[in-house]
Amino acid sequence: MISSHSISQERARELGIEIGVIPTGQMNAITDVSGVKVGHTTLIKGDSVRTGVTAILPHGGNIFQDKVPAAVYVGNGFGKLSGSTQVVELGNLETPVILTNTLSVPTAMNAVINYTLHQRGNENVRSVNSVVGETNDGYLNNIRGQHVQVEDVILAIEKASKTNTEEGNVGAGTGTVAFGFKGGIGTSSRLLPEELGGYTVGVLVQTNFGGVLQIAGVNVGKQLKQFSFSNNLMNNVDGSCMIVIATDAPLDSRNLERLAKRAFMGLAKTGGIASNGSGDYVIAFSTAEKVRIPYRIESDQLQKEFVPNDRMSPLFMAAIEATEEAIINSLFMAESMTGFKGRTIKQLPVEEVLSLLEK
Amino acid sequence: MISSHSISQERARELGIEIGVIPTGQMNAITDVSGVKVGHTTLIKGDSVRTGVTAILPHGGNIFQDKVPAAVYVGNGFGKLSGSTQVVELGNLETPVILTNTLSVPTAMNAVINYTLHQRGNENVRSVNSVVGETNDGYLNNIRGQHVQVEDVILAIEKASKTNTEEGNVGAGTGTVAFGFKGGIGTSSRLLPEELGGYTVGVLVQTNFGGVLQIAGVNVGKQLKQFSFSNNLMNNVDGSCMIVIATDAPLDSRNLERLAKRAFMGLAKTGGIASNGSGDYVIAFSTAEKVRIPYRIESDQLQKEFVPNDRMSPLFMAAIEATEEAIINSLFMAESMTGFKGRTIKQLPVEEVLSLLEK
Amino acid sequence: MISSHSISQERARELGIEIGVIPTGQMNAITDVSGVKVGHTTLIKGDSVRTGVTAILPHGGNIFQDKVPAAVYVGNGFGKLSGSTQVVELGNLETPVILTNTLSVPTAMNAVINYTLHQRGNENVRSVNSVVGETNDGYLNNIRGQHVQVEDVILAIEKASKTNTEEGNVGAGTGTVAFGFKGGIGTSSRLLPEELGGYTVGVLVQTNFGGVLQIAGVNVGKQLKQFSFSNNLMNNVDGSCMIVIATDAPLDSRNLERLAKRAFMGLAKTGGIASNGSGDYVIAFSTAEKVRIPYRIESDQLQKEFVPNDRMSPLFMAAIEATEEAIINSLFMAESMTGFKGRTIKQLPVEEVLSLLEK
Amino acid sequence: MISSHSISQERARELGIEIGVIPTGQMNAITDVSGVKVGHTTLIKGDSVRTGVTAILPHGGNIFQDKVPAAVYVGNGFGKLSGSTQVVELGNLETPVILTNTLSVPTAMNAVINYTLHQRGNENVRSVNSVVGETNDGYLNNIRGQHVQVEDVILAIEKASKTNTEEGNVGAGTGTVAFGFKGGIGTSSRLLPEELGGYTVGVLVQTNFGGVLQIAGVNVGKQLKQFSFSNNLMNNVDGSCMIVIATDAPLDSRNLERLAKRAFMGLAKTGGIASNGSGDYVIAFSTAEKVRIPYRIESDQLQKEFVPNDRMSPLFMAAIEATEEAIINSLFMAESMTGFKGRTIKQLPVEEVLSLLEK
Repeated sequence: MISSHSISQERARELGIEIGVIPTGQMNAITDVSGVKVGHTTLIKGDSVRTGVTAILPHGGNIFQDKVPAAVYVGNGFGKLSGSTQVVELGNLETPVILTNTLSVPTAMNAVINYTLHQRGNENVRSVNSVVGETNDGYLNNIRGQHVQVEDVILAIEKASKTNTEEGNVGAGTGTVAFGFKGGIGTSSRLLPEELGGYTVGVLVQTNFGGVLQIAGVNVGKQLKQFSFSNNLMNNVDGSCMIVIATDAPLDSRNLERLAKRAFMGLAKTGGIASNGSGDYVIAFSTAEKVRIPYRIESDQLQKEFVPNDRMSPLFMAAIEATEEAIINSLFMAESMTGFKGRTIKQLPVEEVLSLLEK
Repeated sequence: MISSHSISQERARELGIEIGVIPTGQMNAITDVSGVKVGHTTLIKGDSVRTGVTAILPHGGNIFQDKVPAAVYVGNGFGKLSGSTQVVELGNLETPVILTNTLSVPTAMNAVINYTLHQRGNENVRSVNSVVGETNDGYLNNIRGQHVQVEDVILAIEKASKTNTEEGNVGAGTGTVAFGFKGGIGTSSRLLPEELGGYTVGVLVQTNFGGVLQIAGVNVGKQLKQFSFSNNLMNNVDGSCMIVIATDAPLDSRNLERLAKRAFMGLAKTGGIASNGSGDYVIAFSTAEKVRIPYRIESDQLQKEFVPNDRMSPLFMAAIEATEEAIINSLFMAESMTGFKGRTIKQLPVEEVLSLLEK
Repeated sequence: MISSHSISQERARELGIEIGVIPTGQMNAITDVSGVKVGHTTLIKGDSVRTGVTAILPHGGNIFQDKVPAAVYVGNGFGKLSGSTQVVELGNLETPVILTNTLSVPTAMNAVINYTLHQRGNENVRSVNSVVGETNDGYLNNIRGQHVQVEDVILAIEKASKTNTEEGNVGAGTGTVAFGFKGGIGTSSRLLPEELGGYTVGVLVQTNFGGVLQIAGVNVGKQLKQFSFSNNLMNNVDGSCMIVIATDAPLDSRNLERLAKRAFMGLAKTGGIASNGSGDYVIAFSTAEKVRIPYRIESDQLQKEFVPNDRMSPLFMAAIEATEEAIINSLFMAESMTGFKGRTIKQLPVEEVLSLLEK
Repeated sequence: MISSHSISQERARELGIEIGVIPTGQMNAITDVSGVKVGHTTLIKGDSVRTGVTAILPHGGNIFQDKVPAAVYVGNGFGKLSGSTQVVELGNLETPVILTNTLSVPTAMNAVINYTLHQRGNENVRSVNSVVGETNDGYLNNIRGQHVQVEDVILAIEKASKTNTEEGNVGAGTGTVAFGFKGGIGTSSRLLPEELGGYTVGVLVQTNFGGVLQIAGVNVGKQLKQFSFSNNLMNNVDGSCMIVIATDAPLDSRNLERLAKRAFMGLAKTGGIASNGSGDYVIAFSTAEKVRIPYRIESDQLQKEFVPNDRMSPLFMAAIEATEEAIINSLFMAESMTGFKGRTIKQLPVEEVLSLLEK
């Protein structure tokens, strides 16, 4: 018999759970998208600090000088995502995307601003649009203590790597809870066949929300009798899900916004309900070099190559699938955790879930 | 052995398929919502006319004189829904909602305008905001022939009843196609327990879209190898889904918009992908008498009683579930149809589907 | 002394009124924008028909086959503009823009649909997104009579020309009222100097709204004591302003939406207040050939050249100025009219206005 | 002859400049709106610190426990306004509104969060939506130095008073520039006559933007040859305008959003163009006690009394006028300032302007 612990360390697909119909990228992670780097700072200290920071970089260069097309979709706007209005207006992203806890958003913004102001080439920059998202880890973490420091954020940015595929209780997912189980960071990707464009779509999520858990279609939450507004989970409906979606397809901001909306559809397929107190945001960007936007533009017009509307549907399907799988991965990869005030949140009971899936 | 035909006439729930965790209303239909009336005009003529009209009335009175709070959510805005900007601006609905085919929207608008202008009490009305949605039934119907007449629309309005629960190949669903199977009209409802408000949420859909069909979680489309971008369905990805959602909960337009967005989450759970060419719109309204908006207001302020934000989540869950079940019902209740240019669309293979669900 | 009539036939600029700081195009009209064609059908019959149709074509070819980037901005969404959601979703326009009266929108939509279905090359088209705007001319026109016919709309499209600069009581402006004076169609343009891009921005308006009239800054309405909520104009606050804005600058839909919003700023400068019952919509499109979107796209990616965000501000200023001047022109060019129920609306008292401006 | 200095200390109306047609409130300030309190912290230190903080409180109680209906309108979304998505989603405001400089937004957010967490009654609060706006004062202020401290923000909140009518170089307006002249804080109000509701609308602005200055209609910028894209102001087009609008009219969030949009029309009337790099945001809230939203709601439904759509137009007009006058006041009340790198921005040349207005 395999121990509960080691099973929990396997991703959904390793356990034979297949979500969707499109093949995954090589690592089945957002870092499959060319250029994307991910870094986590995990803060587990004493009895009550269970939080952290996750940084997603659209490319390895100076993002402020070499912006990427981007969009934000608001599933449910309870939540403190910073920088969204400027992304929507200008259609681009000029900093790493940072995820952390609710009350540490300003600290993370300060970190991103300072990181950017002091990057080589940015000596004269006087305005930085930091994009920082969050979920509320206040059940397991002493969130009022605001334990995230500027350095923790800088560290997550600086150690970001192109091969990072960590999931579960890491970074901004350290103290989160989803569907009454331990949530966390999850990631997944899809690689479209050449005849549908050959593009990669990658997703990273920070899961901290409720609903009626559904895994690859199976109503796990219902069968385990653990879901929002049931006797076992009556008071635990709220929470949030931050979703970051990257693609190497050359998309403009309008089609990135449409792509972002499809990530919210992937969330729906896991049984999320976007409750009143949920901050469900999707940040989407394209890493394609041919659609980058330089800070200083010399010419009056910029030449770009974009995927037209008519070719978007396969990308939409990829976004839905990768988001669903990233959320499910976050549950499989998170381990039981005890934190603030001695509270414990158990991990997904993997064996039980697998037996439900085999039925 | 039961014949294929009679099985197709049973709704999902009658076949033992249970969607979600909240009980349904009495008829499991949008007409469970107090006041709502539904009427269909079905046009099947000769070889090539396969279309129709569906009317949904928020109440039995003069809607123009006694408007209801309303909202529109645009899932994917390919499509010709009329009247949406005024609903969004003023937060109310002043006519029946009409569904028909894409090229008959203007005719249906004319019908609604004339119906309203000539209702008793509206003698001096000079502006009517008709809300008409559509999907494109041009595969089975000779849509360029524009066969819907003003009288067909008036008829659907006039024969609308509080007990109508017709589904499948009726009204605006006569000629539609969903997931490569025959689509049509579907409906469902949810009745929240008293401690969660005791409200009813009802949904009616016109299904005409693609994706990877999922029934109560089971990946029917994948297992039948019939889904968008697969070999069998490569060119049939587009289409639309019109969703009308009614509730007796007293909601303002902001919370109705949030409710409408959850219907889109229900669509996602059936495997819809909101493809580029899909017109996925949700129109939501409240039938509660205490939130009606009279055309002529005598006082400077209107007293209302609303459900606060904090009590919305159960309604959100109900909207997701009822939408998912309404879409699935549309498939179970539709029958195979042959139409324009001799084309045939088969109904859902119910027995095969049931055997997949039993696995 | 010059007669009131002949003065009223002069445009603001001919009378020495200069609005803004940017030079106009050659004709000071929307038709200064390369490719744009305008046509009017004016319906003045008997005592009570005072209405019409205006068609604006972004280019002289098959617009459905060769779509233009476009956007819609909703200033105040009371109003029946058709087609807006699809323009927003897809970022393009596939038909002429039609303006008419409120209750004739469906007829105009039918006309546009039929015009498009029967254009050479569109034999297989089954879905057309007709963009039709309106204002309510029901004070001077028997609007409930719905006197606009399909042929009137087709005629406006077919006789559209590249040199049309008609203003005042023509087309969709035949029976409209603005600031208590006779309104109508107005047009204007701006030509940016080469160092700011050298682009042309053209505007056409259908004015039918209230507020406190301001001409080139001078508070005409206040000084004439004729403004909304004053004793003279208490019940005449509502109405609408349709604004169409064209440019040869190669803009994507996001920057066209931003441009459209600036037209609303131009409306503000004339003293408009976007009252509750006003339908203030702006439709913006680019005529630049290099940003056209073919109906059938052969390649996976489309190469385009766009004006970057950083170069947009001069275009914004041009849009504000041209809209302000187009609205003012509609007032100077409209003549007094008597219509429905013997009602008369007087034209702007030009001499009195000029003397206020000279002060 | 009156000295330039003392003239500059007079508000527009004191100098005989009358904007609009509706009478002002008693102080002609946002603090005319019952309950509203305003506080400024002005930071002028050494050669290069020219910045500050402005706090606007919707009422004197615990705002988190007793939220107010609110809305945000984005004129041009370049800018770092925090908290907007939650205001839009939930339709309410739960903290003071803070204005400061661009790079001090996170510090101000931290201050608001800590202020709220430590207010009596908020001991268990774990999520705070801080609303912080900004403009970029980096021309006169060493903005990269981030000189605003948490205590400066707390101080502005704590010393906020119901009679504060300070304008010009105070608080968040200390180092700002508008139309090439010294900008700053400005305020104004309108009091509707009883027959139009008797409501007060108050506005406070932080002006830091460009365009072609127009004062009470007179084209001051054009006549002084100082405007954006002119020879004198070629490189000074960008900037921002933060607008806060308060009313005692009981409005829901939808009508507050509409009111906010009218403030943007007021900005247009001063000659602002909402340039590409401008952060033009409007935050609107209602102080009416009968529409407050308690943090903990005991009942399933909330009874409210709202102004209906049909009564909104006079409020719209009031918002336009008060915003225009608040912006103009900011210019008349600001004094010339020398700051960072020895740069000087001159105040509005009041005598010259007055002589232009007298023409």
